[in-house]
Amino acid sequence: MSFTDFKTELRERTDKAESVIKKWLPENKGYPGIMPETMRYSVLAGGKRLRPLMLLYICEAAGGDISAAEPFAAAMEFIHTSSLVHDDLPAIDNDDLRRGKPTTHAAYGESAAILAGDALLNYAYEVIIKGIKMAGYQTGAVKAAEVIAEKSGVYGMLGGQGLDVETDKGTFFQDDIGKLDYTYERKTAALIEASLMAGACLAGADERTVSVLEKIGHDIGMAFQIEDDILDVTSDQETLGKPVLSDVKNNKKTYVSLMSLEGARQKAQEYTGSAIKEAGKLPFDSTFLIGLINYLVSRRS
Amino acid sequence: MSFTDFKTELRERTDKAESVIKKWLPENKGYPGIMPETMRYSVLAGGKRLRPLMLLYICEAAGGDISAAEPFAAAMEFIHTSSLVHDDLPAIDNDDLRRGKPTTHAAYGESAAILAGDALLNYAYEVIIKGIKMAGYQTGAVKAAEVIAEKSGVYGMLGGQGLDVETDKGTFFQDDIGKLDYTYERKTAALIEASLMAGACLAGADERTVSVLEKIGHDIGMAFQIEDDILDVTSDQETLGKPVLSDVKNNKKTYVSLMSLEGARQKAQEYTGSAIKEAGKLPFDSTFLIGLINYLVSRRS
Repeated sequence: MSFTDFKTELRERTDKAESVIKKWLPENKGYPGIMPETMRYSVLAGGKRLRPLMLLYICEAAGGDISAAEPFAAAMEFIHTSSLVHDDLPAIDNDDLRRGKPTTHAAYGESAAILAGDALLNYAYEVIIKGIKMAGYQTGAVKAAEVIAEKSGVYGMLGGQGLDVETDKGTFFQDDIGKLDYTYERKTAALIEASLMAGACLAGADERTVSVLEKIGHDIGMAFQIEDDILDVTSDQETLGKPVLSDVKNNKKTYVSLMSLEGARQKAQEYTGSAIKEAGKLPFDSTFLIGLINYLVSRRS
Repeated sequence: MSFTDFKTELRERTDKAESVIKKWLPENKGYPGIMPETMRYSVLAGGKRLRPLMLLYICEAAGGDISAAEPFAAAMEFIHTSSLVHDDLPAIDNDDLRRGKPTTHAAYGESAAILAGDALLNYAYEVIIKGIKMAGYQTGAVKAAEVIAEKSGVYGMLGGQGLDVETDKGTFFQDDIGKLDYTYERKTAALIEASLMAGACLAGADERTVSVLEKIGHDIGMAFQIEDDILDVTSDQETLGKPVLSDVKNNKKTYVSLMSLEGARQKAQEYTGSAIKEAGKLPFDSTFLIGLINYLVSRRS
């Protein structure tokens, strides 16, 4: 697959994910306040739509019914957006801009952002439960729901956010790679794992395939997060779209500070190589997935 | 049923609900930070456990399997607690005490409280999805999940909280009973409706029974909330356990300010009477439910 072909397919799949997200967004339905608008603003503020894209792609590649996967794909983006809305809050990262636009609390106020984040998280499950019904109560759909819920929660993504917050407060010390991995595996890898695994569950894939996809999601997430650590010291604000050297300024432990820039680069490459190797074990054509892995770790912003 | 018998049954059912909640609470599972502890603190800080109690009671009364209803009952309390944790945050009600104990953000900090509230909401769905599997993927269990998710979300409880926040900010005007009802039906009645309805769905009750229970939940919720408005002007701080006349001081529209004390009392009685009348239509013994309705609206704190 040429890079041009990959980019074309990526664009098509991103557009599809975008349209699925829009289709499943909450409507105003006569609600007299701003909550549905706040939820829509948060989701429509942009993003690569990676998680829904991955879920839909894997479901299709594994021979599943894309339309039955739509609510689950949309739900992944709602959960992801909910976490960004709360992450940006004054009490956590205190960011007023994301992707060049005012964050939800900057646009609608702090209390509205707290509740809209809650409502997006809850809405993800409203949509997932509709998805279970649409899929005719199949065990694969319930398994997909289970994977998404567990990877999002206290033992998954939210647990990782919790450790990040404790690290910033100085009550948790990520002073070795083991602890850093524990956080990264949860805050970044867990939702990527969930997207790939849920897509396969919805297609009725076997346990081995789901488990290979969990490993691929883990490795992609780790490579992606380590690349973040690297970009913080090698990129510039214009390219990155956010201030650089912020980890250094905040004295935050990263792969770079714990392993050196060269060591971090090597680890990111190892995880990428491992993800690509695992993708070769999948019982379906994984050309696009391999393209995606290469694309994600070669990003410069 | 004598009042003493009712109180005995209420105590037994509250103890049962309490034990179900404790059984389903997240464990530490080797997590190196404070998130599971923060979640447990929030849930174990107390409460009447009304929602899980109602769900378990209705499931039992309608001939269902109590053990299959347990995860759903626990989930109701996790969703309710999540909403209290976020409601108490500095950006919303800014309360440092609830039931005489430090609120979650007062005990663990604001960022931990935001994430623990999120994790509790998510955990409710982790547990509900486990419940669907435990119930053998029955349609009644998925229906219960659907009712709980919808009544909790943007068109239910969280939507009501959103309007409450907008009212406090002065961007939404509850200047007539219709608008006040819209908020009360969501912020207070929705989770009571969900508890009663989900209990019936889990027992495989017919649609008419579920719909009667929705009406009962609505009426209980409204009576309960109007009673809150009344107690704000008739009780004293010691009895109520929180400052009185807070609605008056905040110039907040309530049933009392819009209808007079006498008018509010009459409306609360109407809703109570209606709930009891509806309870008589249920195809099972509703003695305890009627006792509970009377008990809830005669509370003085």
